Amino acid sequence: MLNHQLDRMYAALADGSRRTMVDRLSRGPATVKQLAEPLTMSLPAVLQHLRVLEESGLVRSEKVGRVRTCRLEPAALQQAEQWIADRRAGWTARLDRLEAFLEEDEQ
Amino acid sequence: MLNHQLDRMYAALADGSRRTMVDRLSRGPATVKQLAEPLTMSLPAVLQHLRVLEESGLVRSEKVGRVRTCRLEPAALQQAEQWIADRRAGWTARLDRLEAFLEEDEQ
Repeated sequence: MLNHQLDRMYAALADGSRRTMVDRLSRGPATVKQLAEPLTMSLPAVLQHLRVLEESGLVRSEKVGRVRTCRLEPAALQQAEQWIADRRAGWTARLDRLEAFLEEDEQ
Repeated sequence: MLNHQLDRMYAALADGSRRTMVDRLSRGPATVKQLAEPLTMSLPAVLQHLRVLEESGLVRSEKVGRVRTCRLEPAALQQAEQWIADRRAGWTARLDRLEAFLEEDEQ
């Protein structure tokens, strides 16, 4: 995956309002109006946040008639999750090796 | 967890140089000099990135004599991972319910 895309995904998640939008979308597709409901901000501000989420790849939307419906892109969410998981796994594997080494040393 | 802390963790991860530092630390503790090695930037710039990582809680460091050693905080990394994992799980659960509903409908 491009480094640049990870930049955008984590930057998109680094905002409480955008995480509220992602959280809402994790329960199913939503219109922009529905996404805006729990947020105390103007519609243009919501659309700006939506744009950041779409550019990161975490969310996509389509407009049918006058209604724009947004949905989560679980594959992108998984990439953001996986990068962190891999680093945690690296750290854990290192601790396991260290433990094995110390046990051998004791014997 | 405080929303603010998630803001800081994702913002810290939204930069390729800082992810390079986290990646290095996932293989074990490192000095600032070791962290700086793969990065083409000045030491003050590296220290600035380290500060962002420390303020996010993902990394901690301690100075013994003249050497500052940095290490990963796996618990913080796990929190950043878990928030995303929970949203993915929500989306997957919704798809499962939808599938079950459609299957029932067919019968």
